[in-house]
Parts: sequence; C-alpha cells; structure tokens
Amino acid sequence: MEPFLSRDKGGWTLDPALDAGSLGVCELELSQARLQRDARFPWLILVPRRTGARELEDLAESDRVLLMAEILAAGRAARAIGEAIGAPVTKLNNGALGNITPQLHVHVVGRRPDDAAWPGPVWGAPGALAYAPAALARALAAARSALFC
Amino acid sequence: MEPFLSRDKGGWTLDPALDAGSLGVCELELSQARLQRDARFPWLILVPRRTGARELEDLAESDRVLLMAEILAAGRAARAIGEAIGAPVTKLNNGALGNITPQLHVHVVGRRPDDAAWPGPVWGAPGALAYAPAALARALAAARSALFC
Repeated sequence: MEPFLSRDKGGWTLDPALDAGSLGVCELELSQARLQRDARFPWLILVPRRTGARELEDLAESDRVLLMAEILAAGRAARAIGEAIGAPVTKLNNGALGNITPQLHVHVVGRRPDDAAWPGPVWGAPGALAYAPAALARALAAARSALFC
Repeated sequence: MEPFLSRDKGGWTLDPALDAGSLGVCELELSQARLQRDARFPWLILVPRRTGARELEDLAESDRVLLMAEILAAGRAARAIGEAIGAPVTKLNNGALGNITPQLHVHVVGRRPDDAAWPGPVWGAPGALAYAPAALARALAAARSALFC
C-alpha cells in the first residue's frame, strides 16, 4: 500500500516530522491514518488532509463530524493492534496537541496498566521502541482490517 | 452559580476526583464544564453527564456531535481565560485520557510557549498552582462569558 500520499490533489502536504515518526496505514475519508513508530503502544495518528489546519476550529463542521467518527474507528484499530501484538488495550487515550508539530493531528493510543508510561500520558515519554518486522506486519494488518482498508 | 450538580436527575454523578481538582463553570447541553484548579494554564474540563461513560465510544453518536461542539466552545473559553489572566493562548491542547480518573472527561487547555510545561503535555506535569482569588474570579467570568452561561 505504500507509498502514502505526502501531497494530495488539493495541495495538502504531510508534515515531514509526522512522516518520519509514523507509517501510513490508510487513507480515510478525511484523514490519513498512520501508525506511530513505537512498539510500546498501539498508537495511531489521524492527520486531516486539510491544508493549513492546526486546530479543530480550523476544520469545517462537517469535517469535525468525520473526524470524530475516524477517532472512534482508530480506537477500534488500536484495540485490534493490541490483540495482534499480545498487549490487549484496556483504555483509549485521545489527544490533539501540536505543540511541537503544528499540523493538525489526533493521537489515538491504546493503553494498558503495564505499559511503559501508565498512568501518565504517552506524549513526552522518552524511549520509543522500534517494531520488530513481524510485529509491525501484524500491527499494520490488524489496523487495516479494523479500518476496512 | 455554585453549587454545581454533582448528581443529575438521570443519576449521573461527578467523580469525586474531578470534583476536587476543578471548579464548576457551566452546565452545557451535554457536559459540565469545569475549571482545573491550576493557575499555570487556562484549563477546562468537559464531563459529559452520561452515567458510566468512560470512552468516546460509550456516547451516542448525537452526544459525540454535541461533545465536539462543546470542545470548540471550551477552546474559545480557554482563550478568553488566557486574555483575562494576562497569558494569551497560542495553541489549544485537547485530550481524553482517563487513566487515573476513568469517568469520561475531555481536557481543553490553552498553551503558550512560555508556560510551565511547554512543549510537553500538561497531564502529569507536577506542581499545580492555586489561583489567587482575583485571578480565579476573572478566569471564571471570562469562561462563563465565552460559554454564554
């Protein structure tokens, strides 16, 4: 399925920092769904393909409705990744920060009480762990199945 | 306007930890809007009055649409608080975690490059600072004005 769009017909371009830190999973109706390169957590990122958007308020209302639906779908995908890599998710964390990378993006992260940052947030938790190739393949397959893509 | 509902007609009860850590601002259509007791950040919390909800997926679709609208309104209120206390907001952070307090609640936080946790997340940043009474009054008034309540 790679390479993913880094620029679409409307001129939207994926921020290079998001491109470097995550892998393309699916093009959803509004957002590009991506998998964070950190095997410690089932961690998806949704990046609405809307040029210049930095805050939720920069989206049209219809896009915000789509985004909410995609956040729910990404939560299902995070749970599916957790099952696929043997780390079942017991809580979802959602966040839109953008303090470091301003392009609007929403994190959807599967958490569990024995994960590396529990009960703190994953954002700012040092020590990203690369996926082993087999686990990455399982995670991507599980996410794509859950997202119907 | 106090005391705020800690239990509504439908049996919803505000989690005691949220009650202790924040102050009631408004009853919005879905959520109780609250001000976090931390003068370091213009920080609102939205708590949907839905018994047992822990995740976004526990809300009805119509409630999720309301919640998205209330998140936007809370962002405007965070900006208004920032102006009122002399700390203008340059970025909004939104998060739904619930790792420590499971009752569904959404954080809407106004950030600025010179704040106490920038560019990291506010969640888990130790050292909450009590509001001085005058600043608290200004913050609550600004939030209520922005939320039309």
